[in-house]
Formats: sequence, structure tokens, C-alpha cells
Amino acid sequence: MSLANGRPYLAIPGPSVIPDRVLRAMHRGSPNIYEGPLIDMAASLWPDLRWVAGTTGHLAMYIGNGHAGWEAANANLFSRGEKALVLATGQFGLSWANSARGMGIDVEVLDFGKSAPVDMGRVEAALRADAGHRIKAVLTTHVDTASTIKTDIPALRAAMDAAGHPALLAVDCIASLGCDEFRMDDWGVDVMVAACQKGLMTPPGMAFVWFSEAARERCGKSDLATPYWAWGPRAGAEEFWQIWNGTAPTSHLFGLREALDMLREEGLAQVWARHRVLAGAVWAAFDAWNAGNPEIAMNVADPAYRGCSVTAARLGAPHATRLREWCETKGGVTLGIGLGMAPSTDPAYHGFLRVAHMGHVNAHMTLGALAVMEAGMTSLGIPHRGGALAAAAEVVAKGA
Amino acid sequence: MSLANGRPYLAIPGPSVIPDRVLRAMHRGSPNIYEGPLIDMAASLWPDLRWVAGTTGHLAMYIGNGHAGWEAANANLFSRGEKALVLATGQFGLSWANSARGMGIDVEVLDFGKSAPVDMGRVEAALRADAGHRIKAVLTTHVDTASTIKTDIPALRAAMDAAGHPALLAVDCIASLGCDEFRMDDWGVDVMVAACQKGLMTPPGMAFVWFSEAARERCGKSDLATPYWAWGPRAGAEEFWQIWNGTAPTSHLFGLREALDMLREEGLAQVWARHRVLAGAVWAAFDAWNAGNPEIAMNVADPAYRGCSVTAARLGAPHATRLREWCETKGGVTLGIGLGMAPSTDPAYHGFLRVAHMGHVNAHMTLGALAVMEAGMTSLGIPHRGGALAAAAEVVAKGA
Amino acid sequence: MSLANGRPYLAIPGPSVIPDRVLRAMHRGSPNIYEGPLIDMAASLWPDLRWVAGTTGHLAMYIGNGHAGWEAANANLFSRGEKALVLATGQFGLSWANSARGMGIDVEVLDFGKSAPVDMGRVEAALRADAGHRIKAVLTTHVDTASTIKTDIPALRAAMDAAGHPALLAVDCIASLGCDEFRMDDWGVDVMVAACQKGLMTPPGMAFVWFSEAARERCGKSDLATPYWAWGPRAGAEEFWQIWNGTAPTSHLFGLREALDMLREEGLAQVWARHRVLAGAVWAAFDAWNAGNPEIAMNVADPAYRGCSVTAARLGAPHATRLREWCETKGGVTLGIGLGMAPSTDPAYHGFLRVAHMGHVNAHMTLGALAVMEAGMTSLGIPHRGGALAAAAEVVAKGA
Amino acid sequence: MSLANGRPYLAIPGPSVIPDRVLRAMHRGSPNIYEGPLIDMAASLWPDLRWVAGTTGHLAMYIGNGHAGWEAANANLFSRGEKALVLATGQFGLSWANSARGMGIDVEVLDFGKSAPVDMGRVEAALRADAGHRIKAVLTTHVDTASTIKTDIPALRAAMDAAGHPALLAVDCIASLGCDEFRMDDWGVDVMVAACQKGLMTPPGMAFVWFSEAARERCGKSDLATPYWAWGPRAGAEEFWQIWNGTAPTSHLFGLREALDMLREEGLAQVWARHRVLAGAVWAAFDAWNAGNPEIAMNVADPAYRGCSVTAARLGAPHATRLREWCETKGGVTLGIGLGMAPSTDPAYHGFLRVAHMGHVNAHMTLGALAVMEAGMTSLGIPHRGGALAAAAEVVAKGA
Repeated sequence: MSLANGRPYLAIPGPSVIPDRVLRAMHRGSPNIYEGPLIDMAASLWPDLRWVAGTTGHLAMYIGNGHAGWEAANANLFSRGEKALVLATGQFGLSWANSARGMGIDVEVLDFGKSAPVDMGRVEAALRADAGHRIKAVLTTHVDTASTIKTDIPALRAAMDAAGHPALLAVDCIASLGCDEFRMDDWGVDVMVAACQKGLMTPPGMAFVWFSEAARERCGKSDLATPYWAWGPRAGAEEFWQIWNGTAPTSHLFGLREALDMLREEGLAQVWARHRVLAGAVWAAFDAWNAGNPEIAMNVADPAYRGCSVTAARLGAPHATRLREWCETKGGVTLGIGLGMAPSTDPAYHGFLRVAHMGHVNAHMTLGALAVMEAGMTSLGIPHRGGALAAAAEVVAKGA
Repeated sequence: MSLANGRPYLAIPGPSVIPDRVLRAMHRGSPNIYEGPLIDMAASLWPDLRWVAGTTGHLAMYIGNGHAGWEAANANLFSRGEKALVLATGQFGLSWANSARGMGIDVEVLDFGKSAPVDMGRVEAALRADAGHRIKAVLTTHVDTASTIKTDIPALRAAMDAAGHPALLAVDCIASLGCDEFRMDDWGVDVMVAACQKGLMTPPGMAFVWFSEAARERCGKSDLATPYWAWGPRAGAEEFWQIWNGTAPTSHLFGLREALDMLREEGLAQVWARHRVLAGAVWAAFDAWNAGNPEIAMNVADPAYRGCSVTAARLGAPHATRLREWCETKGGVTLGIGLGMAPSTDPAYHGFLRVAHMGHVNAHMTLGALAVMEAGMTSLGIPHRGGALAAAAEVVAKGA
Repeated sequence: MSLANGRPYLAIPGPSVIPDRVLRAMHRGSPNIYEGPLIDMAASLWPDLRWVAGTTGHLAMYIGNGHAGWEAANANLFSRGEKALVLATGQFGLSWANSARGMGIDVEVLDFGKSAPVDMGRVEAALRADAGHRIKAVLTTHVDTASTIKTDIPALRAAMDAAGHPALLAVDCIASLGCDEFRMDDWGVDVMVAACQKGLMTPPGMAFVWFSEAARERCGKSDLATPYWAWGPRAGAEEFWQIWNGTAPTSHLFGLREALDMLREEGLAQVWARHRVLAGAVWAAFDAWNAGNPEIAMNVADPAYRGCSVTAARLGAPHATRLREWCETKGGVTLGIGLGMAPSTDPAYHGFLRVAHMGHVNAHMTLGALAVMEAGMTSLGIPHRGGALAAAAEVVAKGA
Repeated sequence: MSLANGRPYLAIPGPSVIPDRVLRAMHRGSPNIYEGPLIDMAASLWPDLRWVAGTTGHLAMYIGNGHAGWEAANANLFSRGEKALVLATGQFGLSWANSARGMGIDVEVLDFGKSAPVDMGRVEAALRADAGHRIKAVLTTHVDTASTIKTDIPALRAAMDAAGHPALLAVDCIASLGCDEFRMDDWGVDVMVAACQKGLMTPPGMAFVWFSEAARERCGKSDLATPYWAWGPRAGAEEFWQIWNGTAPTSHLFGLREALDMLREEGLAQVWARHRVLAGAVWAAFDAWNAGNPEIAMNVADPAYRGCSVTAARLGAPHATRLREWCETKGGVTLGIGLGMAPSTDPAYHGFLRVAHMGHVNAHMTLGALAVMEAGMTSLGIPHRGGALAAAAEVVAKGA
């Protein structure tokens, strides 16, 4: 019998839950795109998008998704044949490398596997080895959406400085912006890529690239920056259409405005803290379950390297797939598949899943998801220790 | 710090959570009310409203709320000075009595208090005592929304039959229809009153009265049946406007159509079973908490007399009020106040609350609400035993 | 071939076009009805509802439609057997009389037919004839939605004063409030009835009764005022639920708030002026068409007695029905049926129609409706003179 | 005084009016993007998108706008340094040329000015002159959104065939798809570019490129086809994410599904005919106004070369700008600016405007817009002859 009929909770790591306020703001007729209220409203997005990124730098907005954001960054940072150093801690780091390679960029990947953080020593060594400074930029994910590993960006900046290498630092915050603490200017980041459908709580369809003055100088030299990708006209538009290189994503702008209002109302420090506590509740539950079944384990052993917006875990095949199905069809919770840990054709694939706690998420949503997971494990006979829900509630009690 | 920013869950016993499908269906421009699609659609509501009530009888629909439903029932069942026997198990039974009294009906109340079910022996005795058959109808709640006591309607029918009394049986299912099992025809009910904002999952604004052929005969004799309340023209309308005695509630009709579709898709037996399991999860949690703090207790001791859509409980003053505030502001869950257990000016008022599990509700919503409650009790230092969340999840695991 | 696919325009005299802002405001989950933001918002409705009515008097709100509003007024103004004088200028005046009669009130109707205004001499004479002051109130429509005749309320007040009769004056502004100038206090009106689905631009479901201090005194003496209808607890509620005698119409409250904001933003004088100009455009078109086909005529000859929110007209049977069908299926405009001018079983019924210009309506909507009507008359071969559209546009040009 | 308060009508040539059905369909929470209903629904879009384009060929979908569509076409049709022949009849043809040039393509433009159609003789001559077949593709607009000139695509195909040149034919139908007749396969078109916010009635955010087998073969040889633009993985995706090169535009997919349903329900031939008649109504009005003021003129003299979705016209400066302002603030109609006819810094700019009759548009909307324009011209004292509205209504009467 199903107990799922009610409001479903989509706990996948993007698109995240869109707030009712955002959906309502998007439910409106087309506006005039040449003059009037839309133009004024859109102007208000710039300072807030800079604020959420922690920068006073430049910004280019795109109709596109995260992959478009990567391509936009690549196109302005590199000319064909120039070199990128990609630090990969999961599938999305590798995908960014593929994006760059597919554009004709010479890509060197430092692959740290799927469960370990970036080894800063290796980064520093690789940069030192590049005596000729062929590497124009270092690309990495802040939180890899697949492995859920978080990279210590200040430490990375320190490693690059220690190596005395002039490469720019480009960071993918697609899975972390508006969830995990990120301070672009303070941390010495030159380029940051994000999209709207995760911490920014807006349906998929927009990508953003923030960039420093140093990155702006480089983009003028790129021969990959085609009209759609070029930062210049978007960041320094004289007419509204140039911001979007054509027609603006009008519905999305209304949604984004509302989402940014929500972030402003709550405050960024509080948003980060909320994600930290809810992530802690999820981790406490896994720690408890695990004691009864060591096959249950979070993908990242050290909490310092776990993203606060999503947690990848393994339950052993086929337990993860069966649990996902149970939670969706019996309990009203849709968990994320385990991405990039094993091919979907490999039986091992069914051993992984991800629990998102991203964006528009509160104690009720996260604790409820954990409770449904426990009910599912019990119902399916997946061994696990008790006490997980109490432990998670305890984290919430202390954090609130 | 607040962990409430995310989708709020309103766990009060009505208005209940309106499904997104219903809200979407209501978001449309005004229709033609004289001919065309609205008229055709509205015709489809009749069989489904009969189905949900378990009757092949008559139906009158009203723009109104539950109180309007009471007044509609009263106006057609009685003439001024005729007698009603009201069986009260909480505030709403008493309110129905007040509604009848305010219309000039002679009301006799059998008040069973706020925590006990109807005593069928007393009912039978009262009817036997009415040798002259002045009592025209017996009025009672199926589930009193305030006390959450459920009345055993087949047993009541049996008591009336045993007394050999010809009074009609009128039941208020406002808090139970579409949640708790109810079979109007099988159970020998003559009149049933409900509204749209609870198990029917539509915003407040419509009331319904289903009535048997015997009740139809009586309504012709009533001198209280003013044009707005009279069953006749609504139940037997020749023109569309007569169904609503004027302009129809057009938006609500679209919403109700969608809500009935959802009930049809799930099936009524399954809807009842879902409520039964989720209620069981809530009860299991209270049973566990209680062992650590006997002040925590459900209002109704015997599960057989608890409604499956809402659970009233006491935590001791001021714990209930503080917990409600914590859950709403810290966890994203709004619980119901304790209604009718103590005046709001009495300190004891702050010792009661209600947890709804009504209508569009699933395992995630209910388990999440319980988990937030436990976090709140911990945070506020309200003594309680552990194991409640595990117990609730266990009930879900077994029930699903 | 149909040219209707596009945004349909419903030009019937209620429900009127619901603004997108209002629909959006109503698209939200259920709020807490015991405390919090809804309660605060609802409090803001009172001063604005008084403002729109032009009164500092009392107000009772109902879940209901216009017929409920009538019954609410009747129930508080009269006891059984007391006398009402109804001034009828169309179907809705007669219906209000029926409502009163059905409640046991002794009703005297002055019927002025379907195309003529109230004859104030007859009113004064009738009141003078009631030497014993059995008439407790005079009931009339400000604009009868069916005949579209407007009553001169200040002249009526003067006639009542001239007669020296103490009867209260009760006016139905269902079709005029928020469209046609109305000043309750300045005009000496004691009771005013309206509903939300016309000039108040909210889906059907709420009725309102404003009442003077004199009317308030009377309501305490009525024996018809049952708990649902009684003004007292609604107008002087100590708890929120009392305003609505039970659960509030939560969705509607959000819609009404938005609609009142729109009226406030535009200003009432401007709203009235807008309706006056648009009505003038419609009348100019009919005046032009008529010269080529005297069968085409507005129902009310003297513009001073035409409502500014809707215009009833005849085209000769079956022209009106055929034109309505053409406009809806070919042009995207739904016109109103001719109500109360002939029974729907009478062939003459097909000679009448109504064009609404009510509420959320602008030059584009009204001029477009007229243009579609002219296209339809041409296509169907209904004789009419040219120049109507130019004349209507001229009225708009001068009025804007 | 403003007569604009009511439903505004946005008559600009895109984004067009979004149907309420489409907005409603988009108002929903995020779906699972890895499995389940979204995936199934999205599969149904392919045959309908082929149907609307008149092709059995290939299709690549993009999160992007029309400019993204151009870049996607360019990237797959050319390698750097290869040659394009662009036939320009207005600003958007020239913009496509700029897009290609900015990507490193060698562009030859045949510019036919802003008011004249493509001269097929010149095209044939240019192709014959390219004896070495350096030209890989001919690019042109079907309807240039700025000049509103329509290109005779079958005649163009014939000219290319007559020249015996192997270049592919690529057509921009951004302003015409779903409005003006277009038959990709029958007309021998190799590549067609469109976006969703005009005839496809969905908010801006998606671009589409349909391509023939011959074009598919060419795309494999391009060195411009970066991962985001490459047709291959999108058109032949094995996994859902590949269709969108990352996260899909989930909200838009629901909207597009509804919009395609609407086109299916109406039928493409009927959709085209509706646009033809409504365009004819607009043209009739301009023909009438013009006789009183020769400064008023449509941009394209020969109706055979006018797009059926939008009409560019001149009124003389500053009349056009003043009329646009009047219509928006007084009448509720927003007209389009005159794009590309004069720089916005040139006083002549204020002499041009565009009237859209595109997508979700019916007789009421178009006739109403014309009537508001006439009222505005009268109010502002812009000389014009009468009879325009009657003439437009006559076209509708005959066409319906």
C-alpha cells in the first residue's frame, strides 16, 4: 500500500524544490522587453547576484544550464590549444574537463578519485612543473554534485600562490552557491560558474559566470569567445538585449528576483548555517544506520570535505535502488541516483544514492526524508541500526 | 536560528494542505456560467460526491463553510420549536447545538465531555424517554475536529433502532469525509454534512448536505427552510443557477473536480487506509513520548474512538504553545491549537495542541512533523522518552 | 473558420474578468487560520471595503453569493410578517422580493417594468399610504444586472424623506459596486449588499452587507437572524472565526486583498470615470448600429438610467443568440444572455443580449468586443449601419 | 485619464502572449530528471516539433534564445573560414550574419534593404559566381522580425537549384513558425532555426534546430561544433541529459507540451489561416488610415512579402512613439518599437512601430488593438482617414 499521496518531496540534487513564491512570480504574461518595468526589475538583479557570490566583480548571465556555464567560462578563458589544469573529485569535474577538451583546449586532469578531496600538494607540484606557464587557468568544482566532495578553495588559492603560478582560478559552484559558504573575492577566485536551479531555487534555464578584472583582461584575447559566449557585451551591455544576446528569459527573471528576495530576507550567513545543520542531521542519521550495517556509508569520510547541499552514500547493491523506489512510491520522497560511482549498466550502480538538502529546504523536509528512508529500510529488510532519527532530530534541536 | 525556510507544512485540522493540482486547476479566468464547459464539468461532480459519501441519495451544495452546512441541515430538518437531540463529544458538537438553538429549534444535548465517546446506552434511554416522538432528528459529529473523538455511527444507528424511535440521523463528517471510513447508506444515515476544505482538499468555501429520501420528505414541512437553505431547488435544480441559489463558486468547482479526480485515482479504501496508517504513526509517537512524561497524552485514550484525520493531545501548559511556536518558527511545521479544551484566556489553554494528518498527506509529511516535534521538545527541554520516531517509522514500514 | 483561438474575453455581467494579479494572489497553500499573517492581512480589508462603499458604517462579510447577501440583509432587517417595499426594475429586483417573501416577510412590490427607471412619485405615494409605518425597509437595486437599469439613489432618498417615512433604505449594488459611482453615507443609504465577483474582481464566493447605525439597531430585533446570517457577531467579532461564522474563505481573502489594492492604486473616481467612458463607447456603437436597423436598441432609452457596468440590448430574435454564438466561436468574445426579458423557452428570448463592461476592463477589451460584434453582424447578415466602431473609438479618444 | 486598467495586451513581436493553459502547465514543482513522468512526456515533444516544422528530419533542442539557435546552426554547418551567403532583408538577417562572422565564418551578405524582398536573380547570380563552391550554406530569414518582410522560400530553393550550387539552405523561422505556412521538407530546406517564444507560445528560453540528412553529414566535419552546440549528441541522445547537454529546462518542457497540444487541437492549416486573416485585418486598417495621411504606411508594399505574424509600419516621427505610449498608458495595448529602421538616437526612430498578430491571438485581440490605435491617433491629432476599423472588421467577417 502506498503512503505517498500528499505533497511529494523531490530530494534530488537539482533541480531543487522551487518555492511557491518563485512559481507564483513566474506565472505571469509576457512583459515588454524593450522598455518598462521588466528592464527596471532586471537591473536590480545585478547587485544581488554579486552579493550572493561574494564579489564586486563582473557578471555575465546566460540562458543555459550548468554545461552552458562551463562552456561560457572556457570560451573566455582560453584560446584553442591553451592549457587548462582540471582538478577532478567526481563526475562533474571530469565533465568540465571534457567540455574544455571538446572546445580544443589542452586539458590536464588531476583526478583525485570519487571519494577523496583535492590533494593540494599535487596541485602545487603540477603548477610548479609548468615552468612555462602554459596553464592559463585551474578549473575545479567547489562541490561536485555527483561525489558531493567539497574542495577547500582558500587552501587551493594558497597552493597556487605557493607555487607562484599566474594561472587564474575558476570554480564551479553549481551545487553549492546559496548553500555552502563561498566568498569569491575574499578567497581569490577569478571565475565562478553557477546555474539557477539549485541554491538559487529557480527552474533550470539560466547560467551565470562571475569574473574578476584579471579574467576580464584575459577574455579579450580568447579566440573561442563566439558571440553567444563572449563575456564583454553581456557584462557591459548598453542595451538590454545584449545582456542576454537576444531575447531575455523573461519568466525566469521574475522567478530569480523572488528567489533573491528570499535569500536577502533570510541572510546569507543564516542560509549557510541552515544548510550546515540540515546536512549535519543527515550525516548523523547515516552514522547511526552504519553501525548496524557497515555497507551503509557516506561517500566522503571526512565531514570537512562534504558538501552541505547533498550527501552521496552507498547502501550496497541493489539496496540503494530498491530504497529509492520505496521512498518514492510508498513515502513521497524522491532521492537522487548515485551518479558517476558506477555505470548504470553495472550492478554496482544500484548500491549508490544521494540525499539532497539543497536550497528551499527546512527541518521538516530533511527529517521527514530521513524518516521515510528508515521506514523503507525496515520494510525492505535492509539491515541498519536504530537511533538514526533521534540522532538527526537531536542535531536539529541543537542547531535551531 | 531558524531551520524553517523551505516548504512550510500546515498540519492544522483544516483548511488542510491544498494539492498543487487543485491550486493549478483553480488558477483560471472566469467561465461562462450560463452555458458551455463549466456546466458540463459541474454535472460530473454529482456522482463523485455521492460516491465519496457512500450514498445514492440526494445532495445539496452550498457556497458556505461547515457552519453553513449545519444551518442548511437544521433549516430543512426542523420547524421552529421542533426538537433536536444533539450528541456532543467536543466543541463542534456543542456548536452545532448552538446553531440549532439560534434558529429556534428546541435542543436537548447529551454532552459526553471532551475525551469520551458517545455512550449509546444514554442515547437509547433518551430516545425511549421521548415517547411522544418530539425529537425529529439526532445530530452528532462523526469526528469532532476539536476533541478528535470519533463516534461509532453503526452503533448509534443500532441504538436508535433498538429504541424504536423514528428520529432521523444526521451526522457531521466535516473533519472525517475523505479521511475516515464512512458509508452513509450502509450505516443508515439520513443526513450528512461536510465542507470542502479538509478531506476534500479544496480551499474553504463550499458546504455539502447529502440526504436520504426520508429526510427529503421532511424538508418539505420545515418552516425554517429559507430560499438560500432550502434543499429542494438545489437538489432538483432545473437550471444551473438554482444549484447554487445564484452565482456558482466557479473557481472552487474547478478545484473540487481535480480533488475528486485525485480521490478516484487513489480509491476510497486506499485513502482511508492511508489515513489509518499515518494516524497510527502519530499515535505510536505519542505513546512513546508519554512514557517519559505522563503529562504528554493523547486526548482520546481508546484508539477505536480516535479520528484518523487529526489527533488532539496535551503536553501540559505552557509546553503545547511553546512547542507549536518552536515547530512553526524553527522547523517549518504549523500545528493546530487545542480547541475547546480550555478557554484561550486560561493558562491551561497552553497545554493542548492538535496534529492533523488530514487529506493530502503522506508518510513524509507526517513523519517529518513528528520529527520536528521531537526536535522541539528536546530543544525546549520538554521531558519525553526516546524511540518515538523509530516507532512511528516502524508503523509506516509495516503499513506500506 | 474560427478566429477565436487566443485569449478569450468573457464579457458577461459577472463573474467578470479576474485580474491575473488576483489569480496569482489566490494561488497559494492554506494559511493558518488561528494566528499569524492571514489574520493581520484580513484586518486590512475592513477599511478598504468601507472606502469602496463610501461609508464609515458597519460591515458583515459572508461566504456566499449575491443571493446570500440578499438573505443576510433580509434576515437582519425584518422579523416574520414585517413588511418590505421592493422597487423592481428588472429580474434581480423581483428576485430579491422573492427572497424576502420566501423568508416570511410581507412584500409589496412596485414593479416598474423591464425598461423604465423607478418612478419616485409612486414610491413617495406608496410610503405616504403606509400611515402605520408597517414598511420597515425599502429594497431596490442600484443597477439591475438583467435590465441594466440604474436607480437614482439620491432621488430615492429624497422621495423617502419627502414622504416622511422612517423605513430604512437598502440597496443592492451587486452589479455596480466598484463600477458606478456610489456613496453610501452621502446618499443616506442604510444597507448595501454586494458580492465579490463583479466590480470587486474576485471569483464568486463572498457577499458583503454594509449597514448604518440605524440598521444595526434594527437587526437586534429581527427574529429571522439565524446564527449564519446575524450581523452582530460578524461585524463585531472578537475572534477571527466569528467574522465568517466558522472557517474563513482563505483563498478569496488573498484575492480580495489584491483586488482592493488595484482599486486603491487606480483611485475610485478614476475607476468610475473609466467605466463611464467605456460604457459611453458601447452606447455610441449601439446608437450607430441602430440607425441601420431599428430592431437593434439598447434596453434603456435614457443614458441617465443606464448602468455603467453592463448594457442590455435587443437585436430581434434569433439575431441576438446567433450573434452571441458567432462572437464566442469565431471571435473570442463571450457576451451575456438577455436575462429576464423573455423566458428561455420563448423564441423572443433569442432577441436579447448583454454586453458587460465591468471591473477589470479597458479600452482594448471593450473596443475589441464591439469590433467582433460588428464583424459578426456583417457575417450573419444582421442589418446595421456603419460607423459604430469609429464612433466608439471617438468616445475613447475624447474620454482618455 | 487612463482607460488601460484591465487585461493588458502585449502586441509586440515576441515574446508573444503566453496562453493561460501554458502558464498553468508551467506552474509546478521540479520533476525528477533522471526517470519517471518527465522523461515520458518529453519524448512526446519530438514528433510534434517535427510536425510543426513540416519535416521528418533531425532535431536538436537547446536551452537558449533565437541567437543561440543561430549559433547552433552556424557551429554545425561551418568550419572556421568556410563561407556563408546571407540574404538579409532586415536587422535580423544582418544579425545572423554578424553571429556567423563572430564565429570566424567568412560571410558574404546580399543586403536587400529594409523594405524589399529577396531578389532571387541576385541570389542565383551570386551562387553561379561561386564556381569553387566555397559557399557551404545560404542563410536567410523566413520572416525578418524587424522589417516583417517574408522570403519566398520555394522560390529561393528554385534559384539555388537553377544555379546548380550544392550549398545547404538554412532558414530562420523564429518569427514565423506556427504562424506563417512553412513546409521544411516540401520546400527543400536543410536547416531551420526557431525559438519557443513566438508562434510556439512559450516563455523565452528554448531554441530548436531542425536539420536534414545532408546537414547532418556536414555537421560531423565542422570544427566549430563545441559540446554545447554539437547537434549529434542532442539529436541522437542515448540518455535524457544529452538532449539538453546537461539539466533540461523542466518548466519550459511542460509549457511547450501544452502549447503543442493547442496547435494540434487547432490544426496547423487552421493556425496559418487564422494568422492570414488577422494580418489581413491589420493591413486593411493601415490601407484605410493611409488614405488620409500618406505618412502612414506599412513597411512592405506588396502583401505577398509581408509576414502574417507582425506588421512593421511608419507613421512619421514622432507620431509612432507617441502613439505607442498612448496605446499602452491609455488603452491597454503595447505595440512594438520599430526595430532596425533607424537608430534609437535618430529622431526618425520615433516614426516606426510594429503591430504583432502572432501566436495566441484572436479577432478580439487584433481588432481591439486596431481600435485603440485609431482612438490614439484621434486623441493625439495624428491625421488619418476613417473607415479603418470597419474595414478590418469586414476582413474578419469574411474570413471567419
